[in-house]
Amino acid sequence: MTPIQVILDCDPGHDDALALLLATGDPRLRLLGVTTVAGNQTLDKTTRNALRILALAGVTGVPVAAGCDRPLTGELTVAEDIHGESGLDGPDLDGPVGELSGRHAVDLMHRLLVDSAEPVTLIATGPLTNIATLLTRHPEVLPQVRRIVFMGGSTDRGNTTPYGEFNIVTDPEAADIVLRSGLPITMIGLNVTHQALATTSVIAEFRAMNTRLGTICAELMTFFAATYLRVFGFEHPPVHDPIAVAAVLDPSIVHTVPAPVTVELTGTHTRGATVVDLHARTGLPPNADVAVALDVPAFWHLLLTTIRQLPIPNPL
Amino acid sequence: MTPIQVILDCDPGHDDALALLLATGDPRLRLLGVTTVAGNQTLDKTTRNALRILALAGVTGVPVAAGCDRPLTGELTVAEDIHGESGLDGPDLDGPVGELSGRHAVDLMHRLLVDSAEPVTLIATGPLTNIATLLTRHPEVLPQVRRIVFMGGSTDRGNTTPYGEFNIVTDPEAADIVLRSGLPITMIGLNVTHQALATTSVIAEFRAMNTRLGTICAELMTFFAATYLRVFGFEHPPVHDPIAVAAVLDPSIVHTVPAPVTVELTGTHTRGATVVDLHARTGLPPNADVAVALDVPAFWHLLLTTIRQLPIPNPL
Amino acid sequence: MTPIQVILDCDPGHDDALALLLATGDPRLRLLGVTTVAGNQTLDKTTRNALRILALAGVTGVPVAAGCDRPLTGELTVAEDIHGESGLDGPDLDGPVGELSGRHAVDLMHRLLVDSAEPVTLIATGPLTNIATLLTRHPEVLPQVRRIVFMGGSTDRGNTTPYGEFNIVTDPEAADIVLRSGLPITMIGLNVTHQALATTSVIAEFRAMNTRLGTICAELMTFFAATYLRVFGFEHPPVHDPIAVAAVLDPSIVHTVPAPVTVELTGTHTRGATVVDLHARTGLPPNADVAVALDVPAFWHLLLTTIRQLPIPNPL
Amino acid sequence: MTPIQVILDCDPGHDDALALLLATGDPRLRLLGVTTVAGNQTLDKTTRNALRILALAGVTGVPVAAGCDRPLTGELTVAEDIHGESGLDGPDLDGPVGELSGRHAVDLMHRLLVDSAEPVTLIATGPLTNIATLLTRHPEVLPQVRRIVFMGGSTDRGNTTPYGEFNIVTDPEAADIVLRSGLPITMIGLNVTHQALATTSVIAEFRAMNTRLGTICAELMTFFAATYLRVFGFEHPPVHDPIAVAAVLDPSIVHTVPAPVTVELTGTHTRGATVVDLHARTGLPPNADVAVALDVPAFWHLLLTTIRQLPIPNPL
Repeated sequence: MTPIQVILDCDPGHDDALALLLATGDPRLRLLGVTTVAGNQTLDKTTRNALRILALAGVTGVPVAAGCDRPLTGELTVAEDIHGESGLDGPDLDGPVGELSGRHAVDLMHRLLVDSAEPVTLIATGPLTNIATLLTRHPEVLPQVRRIVFMGGSTDRGNTTPYGEFNIVTDPEAADIVLRSGLPITMIGLNVTHQALATTSVIAEFRAMNTRLGTICAELMTFFAATYLRVFGFEHPPVHDPIAVAAVLDPSIVHTVPAPVTVELTGTHTRGATVVDLHARTGLPPNADVAVALDVPAFWHLLLTTIRQLPIPNPL
Repeated sequence: MTPIQVILDCDPGHDDALALLLATGDPRLRLLGVTTVAGNQTLDKTTRNALRILALAGVTGVPVAAGCDRPLTGELTVAEDIHGESGLDGPDLDGPVGELSGRHAVDLMHRLLVDSAEPVTLIATGPLTNIATLLTRHPEVLPQVRRIVFMGGSTDRGNTTPYGEFNIVTDPEAADIVLRSGLPITMIGLNVTHQALATTSVIAEFRAMNTRLGTICAELMTFFAATYLRVFGFEHPPVHDPIAVAAVLDPSIVHTVPAPVTVELTGTHTRGATVVDLHARTGLPPNADVAVALDVPAFWHLLLTTIRQLPIPNPL
Repeated sequence: MTPIQVILDCDPGHDDALALLLATGDPRLRLLGVTTVAGNQTLDKTTRNALRILALAGVTGVPVAAGCDRPLTGELTVAEDIHGESGLDGPDLDGPVGELSGRHAVDLMHRLLVDSAEPVTLIATGPLTNIATLLTRHPEVLPQVRRIVFMGGSTDRGNTTPYGEFNIVTDPEAADIVLRSGLPITMIGLNVTHQALATTSVIAEFRAMNTRLGTICAELMTFFAATYLRVFGFEHPPVHDPIAVAAVLDPSIVHTVPAPVTVELTGTHTRGATVVDLHARTGLPPNADVAVALDVPAFWHLLLTTIRQLPIPNPL
Repeated sequence: MTPIQVILDCDPGHDDALALLLATGDPRLRLLGVTTVAGNQTLDKTTRNALRILALAGVTGVPVAAGCDRPLTGELTVAEDIHGESGLDGPDLDGPVGELSGRHAVDLMHRLLVDSAEPVTLIATGPLTNIATLLTRHPEVLPQVRRIVFMGGSTDRGNTTPYGEFNIVTDPEAADIVLRSGLPITMIGLNVTHQALATTSVIAEFRAMNTRLGTICAELMTFFAATYLRVFGFEHPPVHDPIAVAAVLDPSIVHTVPAPVTVELTGTHTRGATVVDLHARTGLPPNADVAVALDVPAFWHLLLTTIRQLPIPNPL
């Protein structure tokens, strides 16, 4: 079977790191490129983190390009309280990393889309600034986008504000552009990602891999657990981003329903909320497939199995 | 023990009807007055319905006054799809009813507050128009208000819009006035009321009372079940309003947490949402005790036991 | 000719003081009552100022009632930078004053409307809180309101914010309620009131009256000139409020056009702006007669002639 | 003296046509490129119109690139009622035109900025979509931008909505991005452009040039006059866009004041208004030089003198 062509747009970030590992380690995906965006940390940090994770995964030959360093409008507020000063606090990640592409993320996405023989799935695990800029700047490549699968928003409560999730609150206009693009869209919101908890047994499985990568994952999750406990009172931290990758790898892992999703741009207390009309109260047509349920055991099985086989063996 | 002095401000409404019955049938409450407001149906209908339910409950001597016939701003949109053309569709409710007070609801509340020897609890199960007008018009009686307990809003999803609950969406400015009043407030939102479902066994218990009132309650719930199934796909209809009365009668029935609650007034897609900050993300001080859990069996026990003993026996 | 029955709802304030004098001194008006509202200063100060001005004008027998002490929503911000600590800084206004009605302003307006043999014109020169509360609380008296003439808003720039005028910005929801009431409405905005400047020759005319009242008016305008120069760089201060009274006395003094007027409630930078559609761009139906031109000499002639004849001679 | 390097970003449009002519015909400017954007008409039409006007002006060697075909968020609404079906209705403009650059407008601007030996002034006479995208996508070129001079907004009333001017209402988020960029900005709003009226004597001067271009300008202004009369009741049509070019050519033609300018993004009735704080009421720091007065005779002298000398004589 032909692998699914994907580009991963991310802002690592602890859970983005797992998303990157999942996207590199499963042969059913072909990762054409990795692009980075400001979000969990500043662009220089999220970019360095992406390069580090790819190096740890043994990935070479996948271009990495840095993109937008701030949201379309307003100022950037990073999630340092959650991801720490580096954006990937916890383990020691030092070591040689690959080289950054000279292109801007939007140019790299554009080029990869134009060059691809078939439509490409965009997976976004950070604010949607890069992808919105791509759609605004290069509308002619829309037919080359098979689907956009993004981690962000929620059908119920948020995390950054009562109704706002971090990725969407960081750049609401970008999310609005994506959701009104007419492209096929899958939304993986907090309502499902809060079910994917890195419990102590999950952390134990990472450690039991007996690899440097497994240990690093365990340390990342241990740090993440501490911040989620302190900030949100969660017993175990939710692992948001890899679910977006998992939903592409195996659509049976999430159950989605088509629904109208709008982004609240004007609310005083709700700016950045994703307003998901699950009961057809608004009369709007559906514009996204919204994840409403997660097969938690299947997700963890997929994630742990994939990471256990990393790093990719050196081809030499 | 002295009974708790209460005024019930309502817009019956199927679940308001149960709230009224609970407020009249328990000796721990002293119902000083009943006021009505436009909401589930127009003011004339909600007022007639209140009079009918009180007559069926055998209540005499409690003044009933009609209040505001529209929200502070904007147009009234009634919930005819949920409560039917009369606001209490289902059973035959014909029969003699008591007389309406010549006073406006706001005047009656004002008079009862001024005349009461001790502070009074206001229970609101409809839009907060009357109570907001009372606070605006008679700020000097605030010390006579012990607490406002209202059914409305939600900590997560809404029912009228994705994040908006009917009572608050109907008059967001009124809710804003109440929530910024500085008075002690308890919010009973959809997040708990959606746990109080009138299942078939509940309906069977109403029927088994073998009273006209029990049969009427069963028929009300049967009608309500049909509309909730049709509009929301609920298997059983939630019984929102009596939980506000139950929370006054027996505070152990709901678990509340103090939290900042703001009303979204400016959102394009979220106007009327109650934005409840459960994780101290906003830095605002708490202004309400927000119900986050419900003792479902204790609630039904209280409600059914009370209604079983109605109507109040004729004193002659 | 029968005099026009009016109630003046005001928040004196320097220009409100002139409005009061104009409303008391012209036999074509019959001033049924004066009501006060929080605005230029706190309610206690605007109420005391109204009583002082009426006493200086020799007016007895006109009931004065204090109304709402804060806007419907949000906090009160007074215009102390413009009107000083007392709300009428400048002259010495000490002296005996009349007694305040025991009624609330809304009750007094309601009672006067009910008792009047013919419809009454409401003139408002402060925030519209009292009038909005009257309309919300007593919708049945709407047919007794001949017209509402208010000073407030603007067809172009504001004074409190770039597009917001003080009276409307102070209570936007109240203005919204009034403008959506369906009653005949005349809006006297900054676009015309900024043409009525108390020049040095006007102030000289006040002084030349050689009455205590004339001197007080001159001192009020001298103080007002200083604040308008300091805050807005105006060479001469505009005299807003008496134009609303003048427009009732002699409609030829202002030229009005029917237009749709909405109040911006949700703007981040424009809340409280009156959005006047003079070119039928919005498709909304007209809901107000909006003043677009002022006969400046006729206005000053009317105002100065009237005040010259005050105080009303003692009937004894 | 070295000419001022400029790029003109436009959406012709009748008054954009005059702006283009002014920018090509005065030796004090060096026009590095022309970029087009959707606005007065769709992108294909505004682009064709730019090419036509340049051909009529005898301009060769200036690259023209088409840019964004829709605003950053929301749908495009063109001004067909004002500019007609072609965007330049009125004269017959057929004839050979130059070739379009293969680059996107944003790429062309980026390239011209990078290649220029000195900073470049961007003149924008359409919606700010291209320029906002440039700033978002290529923040590193900001130091190469000397100043952005845009026609748009107003210090008082608008034209598309009561407070909204067409270019800003068409893409409020783009305007917001530009105004918050920190770059030196000059705003040429309706408050000054409504003073530059193409009176019958102006139209007569165009005709008296006895050139094809003069006749075309006369016909453009005759068509424009008819639409402004019909839509706005203007006796003569205002010529907005060339004032932005004139302000670069000869800064003494407009008087500007530094002021804080924000774009209203959330207003229900005021979205797209430029909120200009001329009296330091908001406490915000100035971010633009806002035109508040226009030397009308000097403007017309400059414009007519320049166009009289066009087309540029063929160098052969």
